[in-house]
Amino acid sequence: MLSFESDYTTGAHPTILQRLMETNLEPYSGYGSDPYCESAKEKIRAACGCPEAEIWFLTGGTQTNAMVISTMLRDYEGVVAADTGHVNTHEAGAIEYSGHKVLPIRHHEGKIDAADLTKYLAQFYQDGNHEHMVFPGMVYISHPTEYGTLYTKSELEKLSDVCREYGIPLYMDGARLGYALMSSQSDMTLPDVARLCDVFYIGGTKVGALCGEALVFTKHNMPKHFLALVKQRGALLAKGRLLGVQFDTLFTDDLYWKISRHAICMAEKMKAVLNEKGCEFYLESPTNQQFIILQDEKMAELAQKVVLSFWEKTDKTHTVVRLATSWSTTEEDIEQLGELLSL
Amino acid sequence: MLSFESDYTTGAHPTILQRLMETNLEPYSGYGSDPYCESAKEKIRAACGCPEAEIWFLTGGTQTNAMVISTMLRDYEGVVAADTGHVNTHEAGAIEYSGHKVLPIRHHEGKIDAADLTKYLAQFYQDGNHEHMVFPGMVYISHPTEYGTLYTKSELEKLSDVCREYGIPLYMDGARLGYALMSSQSDMTLPDVARLCDVFYIGGTKVGALCGEALVFTKHNMPKHFLALVKQRGALLAKGRLLGVQFDTLFTDDLYWKISRHAICMAEKMKAVLNEKGCEFYLESPTNQQFIILQDEKMAELAQKVVLSFWEKTDKTHTVVRLATSWSTTEEDIEQLGELLSL
Amino acid sequence: MLSFESDYTTGAHPTILQRLMETNLEPYSGYGSDPYCESAKEKIRAACGCPEAEIWFLTGGTQTNAMVISTMLRDYEGVVAADTGHVNTHEAGAIEYSGHKVLPIRHHEGKIDAADLTKYLAQFYQDGNHEHMVFPGMVYISHPTEYGTLYTKSELEKLSDVCREYGIPLYMDGARLGYALMSSQSDMTLPDVARLCDVFYIGGTKVGALCGEALVFTKHNMPKHFLALVKQRGALLAKGRLLGVQFDTLFTDDLYWKISRHAICMAEKMKAVLNEKGCEFYLESPTNQQFIILQDEKMAELAQKVVLSFWEKTDKTHTVVRLATSWSTTEEDIEQLGELLSL
Amino acid sequence: MLSFESDYTTGAHPTILQRLMETNLEPYSGYGSDPYCESAKEKIRAACGCPEAEIWFLTGGTQTNAMVISTMLRDYEGVVAADTGHVNTHEAGAIEYSGHKVLPIRHHEGKIDAADLTKYLAQFYQDGNHEHMVFPGMVYISHPTEYGTLYTKSELEKLSDVCREYGIPLYMDGARLGYALMSSQSDMTLPDVARLCDVFYIGGTKVGALCGEALVFTKHNMPKHFLALVKQRGALLAKGRLLGVQFDTLFTDDLYWKISRHAICMAEKMKAVLNEKGCEFYLESPTNQQFIILQDEKMAELAQKVVLSFWEKTDKTHTVVRLATSWSTTEEDIEQLGELLSL
Repeated sequence: MLSFESDYTTGAHPTILQRLMETNLEPYSGYGSDPYCESAKEKIRAACGCPEAEIWFLTGGTQTNAMVISTMLRDYEGVVAADTGHVNTHEAGAIEYSGHKVLPIRHHEGKIDAADLTKYLAQFYQDGNHEHMVFPGMVYISHPTEYGTLYTKSELEKLSDVCREYGIPLYMDGARLGYALMSSQSDMTLPDVARLCDVFYIGGTKVGALCGEALVFTKHNMPKHFLALVKQRGALLAKGRLLGVQFDTLFTDDLYWKISRHAICMAEKMKAVLNEKGCEFYLESPTNQQFIILQDEKMAELAQKVVLSFWEKTDKTHTVVRLATSWSTTEEDIEQLGELLSL
Repeated sequence: MLSFESDYTTGAHPTILQRLMETNLEPYSGYGSDPYCESAKEKIRAACGCPEAEIWFLTGGTQTNAMVISTMLRDYEGVVAADTGHVNTHEAGAIEYSGHKVLPIRHHEGKIDAADLTKYLAQFYQDGNHEHMVFPGMVYISHPTEYGTLYTKSELEKLSDVCREYGIPLYMDGARLGYALMSSQSDMTLPDVARLCDVFYIGGTKVGALCGEALVFTKHNMPKHFLALVKQRGALLAKGRLLGVQFDTLFTDDLYWKISRHAICMAEKMKAVLNEKGCEFYLESPTNQQFIILQDEKMAELAQKVVLSFWEKTDKTHTVVRLATSWSTTEEDIEQLGELLSL
Repeated sequence: MLSFESDYTTGAHPTILQRLMETNLEPYSGYGSDPYCESAKEKIRAACGCPEAEIWFLTGGTQTNAMVISTMLRDYEGVVAADTGHVNTHEAGAIEYSGHKVLPIRHHEGKIDAADLTKYLAQFYQDGNHEHMVFPGMVYISHPTEYGTLYTKSELEKLSDVCREYGIPLYMDGARLGYALMSSQSDMTLPDVARLCDVFYIGGTKVGALCGEALVFTKHNMPKHFLALVKQRGALLAKGRLLGVQFDTLFTDDLYWKISRHAICMAEKMKAVLNEKGCEFYLESPTNQQFIILQDEKMAELAQKVVLSFWEKTDKTHTVVRLATSWSTTEEDIEQLGELLSL
Repeated sequence: MLSFESDYTTGAHPTILQRLMETNLEPYSGYGSDPYCESAKEKIRAACGCPEAEIWFLTGGTQTNAMVISTMLRDYEGVVAADTGHVNTHEAGAIEYSGHKVLPIRHHEGKIDAADLTKYLAQFYQDGNHEHMVFPGMVYISHPTEYGTLYTKSELEKLSDVCREYGIPLYMDGARLGYALMSSQSDMTLPDVARLCDVFYIGGTKVGALCGEALVFTKHNMPKHFLALVKQRGALLAKGRLLGVQFDTLFTDDLYWKISRHAICMAEKMKAVLNEKGCEFYLESPTNQQFIILQDEKMAELAQKVVLSFWEKTDKTHTVVRLATSWSTTEEDIEQLGELLSL
């Protein structure tokens, strides 16, 4: 059945599987010490324009978020995030499981605003009882956000400035970073991200890998004995090559950007079709996730033919649904969708 | 270079890669809800002779151990293990990170003894202060052990009886379970394991998979909302199919057993060669890991030509090294090893 | 200097010190096994009209909240609370340190509303992704709230009904419970509290004790091996008698209620004086904490003569301050306050 | 009934209760900011000969141990302790609850040996897999030990040297520190302890206080925002004066030392009586805890008349029991014990 359910419904980009096959018999020590991990790190450092970046490969987004937050914060600190941020809503409490509070501030289409952040931080230190409160020790943003929206470079600069003023790291969850940077609305590059953030990850799982995220520390700030910390949290793969080969492939011949650009093109075509068919958009997303409002009956009918993601109810008879494109979305898929919407 | 460093130095068995390729474009919902996960579970249930088994796929051994222990124990409980047990020694404190103590008892070539266990449990409840102590809430064993040794069926029955007497689960770490059950010394079957243990895992990473362990609860005892618990611990893969397809393949046409049997055959040939060359064995292992004692100079010399694992020093001039076979070990590898030892 | 800073600025009610002295030389086993703990529990059971209540004494409020929440919730659960709730704001992340999320819902003068709660719970289970979210596993309320306000019996009944419908415990933080029940606005009794809540604590620290809170489980729901859990969290006093004697004294001859009633009387007189002097109240509080809005200059001036608590800024030139009465507040203190306000 | 059960069976030294009464009505801000806390800290700094010492008051020993260990260790570190150490045996897993492993090494009458420690640390760093293991990040000792035994100054110097060589703090659990320093066998002073240890606590609960331990950081090494960390672990008393007044009293006119000396005198007399009556000592203890081996029948008989502590079984018919003296032990108590033993 036709599916726009998400960007992780199909397997890996074929080039990745191809490389896994080609390298399969080469024997390597485990735990990330193999030459593909090294090569992938080198290529990512180059792509980031950040030769001093320290990089680690992990298997998934929630794991990576919990790893960053739990290893970079001190016990008395929490992480500031949009109330809609993934760490605050859909990680089953992984951050709290690691002992840290998520400090939510209101979102604006999934984004946090530098002025709101400044106000929050200023008030915190003004409060006479702040030693009884959770210290804001990091700022978490997702880019694109959970709503597919993007920060402008200027917005990111402002957030980065606030963080530096308060001496706390800015962390970007880049589960879908490729789609952000390849969006026609983006005015940012990967080196901008590396410069403005203190730590971020380049999502693989949702951008063509079988699994895997590349975590990048850009300010000589990778926690000491990170391997031990990763092992302790159950996140160390024995066959680290599985992640090394994948990211080495993604960052060879611009594959990561090609996959991202492809999904963006498909999303743009999908948007055109949705518009043409008179669909109401929930918000304007410039990336690979599109949100439309459907009458519940229409949604039920459509659900017979195409897999979509339930997002939320807007009222008793309408629902927001999400349609996502990926490396494997084809023009035919979009056409079929158009036909289904015509019925 | 020739390598006997471990059973996770090469990639996956080719049939697994083949199946990943064949199923790559099929779109499935994530998080383990795909039909390959279902099919793999069904096959494992059948292989266990345990139709009611509840099964979950995870990516690695330490992750699986921490998952089982942290979700099955109550806060006031710890896990009893051999002092040489993986959970007590080489998991970077993953069990303690989850809040639980490992309660070590002395090992006998990596195994725990039912009499020692009984004594430990009896003394615990006899101690007037036991409410101030960590309650023994589970027994952890590895099979094969970290030294490659095996429990006999009778030994496992005794441990199982003690656990039932005290009402605590018996958990088997089966990172290399295939090698245990395919050993010519084994008098146990997978249904025996399923019957005698309350929970165990069938290791994939070290038995031919890219990554992955199949966790099996055999007594209607999978913790409630296990998906949420897995997510919370950062162990939920979005593309759950990666694990589903692998285990479905491993449990089709006996692939798991064939891989295991192959490594055991290679280990037996390797043992013969080592014996022939006059190597001193550290202990008698009937599985795919062999431990020999080398003079440090001999070890250094050999290390130029073949990768081995440092295990431990026995005295100032001798070292125990481990040699492991795997799905990818060939007769030529063994012959080459023999030649190197002849020099 | 005159102080209305809080209800924990002076020591203990003299009768308590007297009893500590009288019982000082009696030798008792530790950890809460002494006869005063037993006697205190018996008296509290009687006062609650709940002969089956299970009771434990702890030293402070945050400790008690963390104890209840961390021992009653399952790992995948969090606690629903007003966004202004003490557990969400002023416990330095104690709840998250124990691994659990506080799930904030909007407050109404410090209280949560049964309709808001129902909506929250209903939406949670409606969300298709709720297995990726933190389960609402308990409802936390404070009575009086952090703003000194009170639930009516009818409001509490509604909250209790919602909790029972969803099968989750209702927990009342009664740090100042005496002041709630002795307020002239209260339409509730301690047996009402015991009946409608599943667990609550009767605050001692803020109601005349040196330290100590009496935690009451009313539904045969005290977690198993609670002593071990308390010890594990560092909350078990060797000389448990310190808490036993205090609560035995507080629940002898209605001392707890007399202390509470006294502070309420003083608060009513203080309110009259504040009104008379034209002070603007931030909100209407029927308990021992009163909140007034002062011009910053006036506040600074007053702060030379009397200790008040900074609460929060309302705008650039005004501040909310809190004045609290306690067992040790005298009519003279109130008169002096009146005189200072006249200047 | 006569009791030698422990040193925490009676209340507080009368001078402490007296001072609590005298200061009862003075109003002070909470959480340890009162002048008695300040004064007590000043006196303790002087007694330690360490003007730069940072001090915090907590309520109990397990709480203090968990506080020190969990706030001073990094996530990847554990604490080395004697296998008989309180943190390893009788704290209900409080250290593991905070996420850290206790790394046991063998004890010698409750003490650890510098040579064993050196060997342990050297082997750890020699192990090629040590990044997969728990790093030794602190050394815990108790003085006196759980068996009442004492380190000599030379032994403590050696442990201190090893810790400095490896750059890890030496932590002394001084639950009964007074009894150590007032023992006629002691060749150490409090300034020696302060100089040789990096952090230690001066026990109050077992040396005449109602509750309370004074935690002393001697090397500018108190963790940042310690108040927040204490609050987060539920260990912050609102009426901090309760601890301040007690320690201020204990360190005025040498009360702490007088109490300790008294209990030692009583222990010496008790030893003489026990010897005289032909009791077999389990080991030679120079402090306030004495351990004797009794035939089970004799023990049962004695238990009718005097409360003793069960320690452990030595064989099927004999048991080790502990007798402890304290501030409240009298010569009459000792005489009575002698009489009971004569029967």
